[in-house]
Amino acid sequence: MKSVAYLGPPSTYSHQVTLQRFPPDQYTHLPCIQISDIFVAVESGKTDLGVVPFENSTNGSVVQTLDLFCDREKSFPSIKVCGEAYLDVHHCLLGHPRQSNGEISKDTVSRIFSHPQAFGQCEPFLTKYLKGVERVDVSSTSKAADLANKDPSAVAIASSIAASVHPDLQILASNIEERSDNTTRFLVISKATADPSSIENDDKTFMTFTVHHEQPGALCDMLMVFKEFGMNLTSISSRPSLIVPWNYIFLVEFEGHQDASHVKKALHKMNKYCQSMRVFGSYERGLKRDKRLDG
Amino acid sequence: MKSVAYLGPPSTYSHQVTLQRFPPDQYTHLPCIQISDIFVAVESGKTDLGVVPFENSTNGSVVQTLDLFCDREKSFPSIKVCGEAYLDVHHCLLGHPRQSNGEISKDTVSRIFSHPQAFGQCEPFLTKYLKGVERVDVSSTSKAADLANKDPSAVAIASSIAASVHPDLQILASNIEERSDNTTRFLVISKATADPSSIENDDKTFMTFTVHHEQPGALCDMLMVFKEFGMNLTSISSRPSLIVPWNYIFLVEFEGHQDASHVKKALHKMNKYCQSMRVFGSYERGLKRDKRLDG
Repeated sequence: MKSVAYLGPPSTYSHQVTLQRFPPDQYTHLPCIQISDIFVAVESGKTDLGVVPFENSTNGSVVQTLDLFCDREKSFPSIKVCGEAYLDVHHCLLGHPRQSNGEISKDTVSRIFSHPQAFGQCEPFLTKYLKGVERVDVSSTSKAADLANKDPSAVAIASSIAASVHPDLQILASNIEERSDNTTRFLVISKATADPSSIENDDKTFMTFTVHHEQPGALCDMLMVFKEFGMNLTSISSRPSLIVPWNYIFLVEFEGHQDASHVKKALHKMNKYCQSMRVFGSYERGLKRDKRLDG
Repeated sequence: MKSVAYLGPPSTYSHQVTLQRFPPDQYTHLPCIQISDIFVAVESGKTDLGVVPFENSTNGSVVQTLDLFCDREKSFPSIKVCGEAYLDVHHCLLGHPRQSNGEISKDTVSRIFSHPQAFGQCEPFLTKYLKGVERVDVSSTSKAADLANKDPSAVAIASSIAASVHPDLQILASNIEERSDNTTRFLVISKATADPSSIENDDKTFMTFTVHHEQPGALCDMLMVFKEFGMNLTSISSRPSLIVPWNYIFLVEFEGHQDASHVKKALHKMNKYCQSMRVFGSYERGLKRDKRLDG
């Protein structure tokens, strides 16, 4: 049975997408404390696969994950990307039964625990029902549910499955997020990349690169190669290189499989324009509707 | 006397750069609780200027600031960028006199307060001297000093000026950050942009744009215009547009003043390739050494 590492503790959104994508009758699941632990688990061979949050449609990039892919210390030479998965994120307000007599009121709630991203996504609900109540930032929505479970006057913003693991908590309100299209994209990492999918143009490739600091327009030259070979960009981000200040590592995802001949030619041509590059592998598109950065 | 809003409370790094750039004998200073309050203060005319953190050479972009420049709700139609300022960030360990008898030891420290970015920047020091001591994330290094001041067994990672405003605290260790080149870049906002500087090629311009979702290669076409007109990029970032998922607003800074004829021509040409664009104005380069994204 193959094993999958995810960002725990159990009942996080990472756990939810892992259960969907890698059913527990076929995979064993390993909760990790930090995203870096997932990279370590895969690199060391402790698990076969890892599921890491990459970006949220409302909040943008997950910076810790970007930094791990930058791999400045070369700690993860074997890590590849072999898949992606999307999760529709629906937040619940979890609390104690006595808090739900009638409607949700700030009179029965002393504080709200959640992750900063979740607070950001539920602003209108909080303003309407719990304005002025103290908010406590914690490291995961799962941890938030844990803390609310121990405090009869507190509530948490967390996933619906967090209610099922805490018998003292119940769902006081569902779908309290502002946007109904709130989606998180996860990447699946392993030591092997994926074969081309059977459907044409259904693969994407993930890579990082740095450009020569002294060569004007080098970033533009790199992006031109993508255009020349018809490889649409689906994601671009950057992080400090930490070699010299204000020098960046770019993280790019594009349409096409690394084994396709036009992609091979393009990657070869890119060598001219970049200082360093690393291709993390190809995988089948996880979302059937179009996600393109530039068209 | 002109007034400047900054991210308070007093003794933050934002305060420090504001004091350097806008001396208190010439400007009144208004501390704000959140970065959005600085935008509101300038837009409403409550202050003439605002200083907002934009990026750190170690940690990258300040996402809250990027989102405010995205201005999705059109709340800040008058905001322009009229300057930039750099601050060398040096962290101190602040604590109580009895904790400094001899060397710093985890036996005399129950917990460490700081901002998550500061913890990230002092990892080797913390591992060496305070391994395993509880860390408490708070919203600013200034707040961290405040909390340590009230708790005789706690310490804080904060600026040296935070020690001067808390008489019970003293500097237990200085320059505890990992990288000596740890720098934060701030932008200065106002309702007016700056005139071209007297030195040629010493101005930069800040703008945001979105590209047509349906037009392949539109981002590349936009970047080509910068190259064609010799306008080097010095910064590029993106944030979710929040119009449809996986559609982005790009935030770009380039060399050149918006009143220069080649920049005017380039901006005119860009209109073809983007769905929307907003030029936030031009300002003199704050750092005399070269900071170029792509050359």
